[in-house]
Amino acid sequence: MDDVATNERRIMVAVDEGEESMYALSWCLKNVISENSKDTLILLYAKPPRPVFTTLDGTGYLFSSDIRSAIESHSNDVAECVIEKAKRMCKDLQNVKVQTRVESGDPRDVICQMVDKLGANVLVMGSHGYGLIKRAFLGSVSNHCAQNVKCPVLIVKKPTTNVAGNK
Amino acid sequence: MDDVATNERRIMVAVDEGEESMYALSWCLKNVISENSKDTLILLYAKPPRPVFTTLDGTGYLFSSDIRSAIESHSNDVAECVIEKAKRMCKDLQNVKVQTRVESGDPRDVICQMVDKLGANVLVMGSHGYGLIKRAFLGSVSNHCAQNVKCPVLIVKKPTTNVAGNK
Repeated sequence: MDDVATNERRIMVAVDEGEESMYALSWCLKNVISENSKDTLILLYAKPPRPVFTTLDGTGYLFSSDIRSAIESHSNDVAECVIEKAKRMCKDLQNVKVQTRVESGDPRDVICQMVDKLGANVLVMGSHGYGLIKRAFLGSVSNHCAQNVKCPVLIVKKPTTNVAGNK
Repeated sequence: MDDVATNERRIMVAVDEGEESMYALSWCLKNVISENSKDTLILLYAKPPRPVFTTLDGTGYLFSSDIRSAIESHSNDVAECVIEKAKRMCKDLQNVKVQTRVESGDPRDVICQMVDKLGANVLVMGSHGYGLIKRAFLGSVSNHCAQNVKCPVLIVKKPTTNVAGNK
């Protein structure tokens, strides 16, 4: 068994718009990242594929190319915003290399592919919990990744601070 | 957000007979446990409930009390053996308190309950993967726990060293 901790570790954190993934990143920074080792932190954002819009009458020709490009542009803005926010959270790291990566596609596929492609030693992500009904059909992103990637997966849930909203 | 890393962390590792859970423990020792902090490591073994034996003709009165107590005794031996093996792996820890706990019941329930009861800050476990078909019906222990515990869950898969057996 190799001594992973003293070697370079490639720690991938899947970030998205949600607060939970930022909490996962912060938990990882405090609990997993070691300033003494040669860790590389990879911040990955999966840009959702262009959504399929269906109009009420099913015709679906509602969006002009102007609007389509506005959606695309918005999507890029979101990606940049998420990655910038995540990078800011890592600004105090001294000895850790921080890399960022934005890839388009279903987050489930993107994350699994990137773990493999970039040789991550551990994947960190929020629990990405859908509601009960949606989960029954789709499965959550974190479940899918935990089942399909080869490396250890750390799934972090944001603690609920509002007890009333804790359902 | 509290600075968990400098406070006492309660790290629970669910161990069982399988090599994967021991690999998860070793990964945790190298990558999560910090000798500088006041970590407490809790080794938890869920002793499976007494299995229900059904004879081929459905009568089920096959086992005498002698045999039942032999099964019970074997089950205790296994629990002790697993816990001892896990403790040996932790023998080099200097500043980390190691606690052990054996509880009877379905591992899914036992692990979730103990995380809550003992106030674990992170749960570490093997992926406990069943085969595809069994998983479709039962779900895996790790999936269940990842969905149901409140704290971060680290799911560790044992890397397959034998490529031929890597299906």
